Amino acid sequence: MIVMSVAEIEAFLSREFPQIAETGDFIIEEVGEMSARMRLRYHDRHLRPGGTISGPSMFALADVGLYVAILAQIGPVALAVTTNLNINFLRMPEQRDLIAHCKLMKLGKRLAVGEASMMSVGSDSVVAHATATYSIPPRSEVL
Amino acid sequence: MIVMSVAEIEAFLSREFPQIAETGDFIIEEVGEMSARMRLRYHDRHLRPGGTISGPSMFALADVGLYVAILAQIGPVALAVTTNLNINFLRMPEQRDLIAHCKLMKLGKRLAVGEASMMSVGSDSVVAHATATYSIPPRSEVL
Amino acid sequence: MIVMSVAEIEAFLSREFPQIAETGDFIIEEVGEMSARMRLRYHDRHLRPGGTISGPSMFALADVGLYVAILAQIGPVALAVTTNLNINFLRMPEQRDLIAHCKLMKLGKRLAVGEASMMSVGSDSVVAHATATYSIPPRSEVL
Amino acid sequence: MIVMSVAEIEAFLSREFPQIAETGDFIIEEVGEMSARMRLRYHDRHLRPGGTISGPSMFALADVGLYVAILAQIGPVALAVTTNLNINFLRMPEQRDLIAHCKLMKLGKRLAVGEASMMSVGSDSVVAHATATYSIPPRSEVL
Repeated sequence: MIVMSVAEIEAFLSREFPQIAETGDFIIEEVGEMSARMRLRYHDRHLRPGGTISGPSMFALADVGLYVAILAQIGPVALAVTTNLNINFLRMPEQRDLIAHCKLMKLGKRLAVGEASMMSVGSDSVVAHATATYSIPPRSEVL
Repeated sequence: MIVMSVAEIEAFLSREFPQIAETGDFIIEEVGEMSARMRLRYHDRHLRPGGTISGPSMFALADVGLYVAILAQIGPVALAVTTNLNINFLRMPEQRDLIAHCKLMKLGKRLAVGEASMMSVGSDSVVAHATATYSIPPRSEVL
Repeated sequence: MIVMSVAEIEAFLSREFPQIAETGDFIIEEVGEMSARMRLRYHDRHLRPGGTISGPSMFALADVGLYVAILAQIGPVALAVTTNLNINFLRMPEQRDLIAHCKLMKLGKRLAVGEASMMSVGSDSVVAHATATYSIPPRSEVL
Repeated sequence: MIVMSVAEIEAFLSREFPQIAETGDFIIEEVGEMSARMRLRYHDRHLRPGGTISGPSMFALADVGLYVAILAQIGPVALAVTTNLNINFLRMPEQRDLIAHCKLMKLGKRLAVGEASMMSVGSDSVVAHATATYSIPPRSEVL
């Protein structure tokens, strides 16, 4: 069951993560059952030489996308924190928006684990793949 | 043997990675035998709510620091690419500069693997720890 | 295109990895386009207390399954070696056979990267998820 | 402060992990402040072709060594479970015992994170390096 809409999550992120929200580059496209789809706008702020999107930008895309998927399932948990993120860079992204398909594999009381597959828009080739773990705070600490 | 000085690596990064170099936030403090020490200037661009440094900034610090350690050993290899990075976030960084102690564990013909331990300046507590793998291009592709 | 059949891969593994093959516990169920399905026979040699399958056994299942997927695509490359494996343990496996669905996300000239989702037979719940990188030897070193 | 001796940990492992303890191949050499040193006896059960120690054996060595380090600090927590393990294989081990130097980087109330550097006995070269996360059960579930 989805407990927060895209609009509610956007409002939450603007308040809690103004640095990311203000860039305007990370767009929540959709949230679903244990999942989210997140878009990174192609922009030369994110670039490495040769016009490809940088590692830290892809890291941020996967991390925010999985966090959004968690919010959608359990509500506004500002204190959920990333404890581990492993990312494999597979091929050069194209010079266009990057889409992260984010899927939660586990959503427990204390830990959530998910994976994100990132593709250039319009392509099926996985550019980067991440798995990450989040520590969920005890209920009493939830905002 | 160190084949590039800090000044040479800085000039190389400005040319090849202008987006990171222009921030002025990533400082090479020292390069050594299979190692480098890198500093991230505390600045609210890097912050999460509560005043802590963001995951993507720590990712970038470890990634650039290990890349610098590789450059120092093998010279200007612009096309070396990160293939895998795994990062564990251990505790909240303090509101000051973050230091990454970067160490290469392997520097082969095709792959380099290193680890980075990140501490708030003046502290011994590891805030985040990363290991990463870099693909080294065949010599003929070296700049 | 599949260049080795299940029977050919089994014969190759018996010769090259007798320690794993002799256990009789790792069964290749199917190989396909960039994929393989591998089964670990439930057996108390693999157990932790409480009757669950051990971490090293799940590690081996993912690692062998992805190696089988690579063999199926590129033929008998005995010297391909695992360079990185990251595994998340999500929930207790049941007391029955464990199936690994192995998928290659990249099969380059020098590196292959894949992921393996492991489920107890008859269940959809992911028990463990691994991603791994393999270094592919230059052609001249291929057997 | 160390709360369990090597002998106490050995007795605990024999009872709780008979499959590993019975092999007689995993030797606790020492426990210390946030650390442990673990030895894997060289034996052809652990071998890959060419006489090297297999990935699953190195996985098990790192995992058990870090678990031992946790036990030494917090006492007999049978239900602590590995949630993530990332391992980089750096070079071929030699045909002798393998030593894992295990160090806890964090030991929190809910999560412990450590790293293990593995070297062939008598060598300084790191053969494999692992980082792992353990979920610590709430006190009431402790044995």
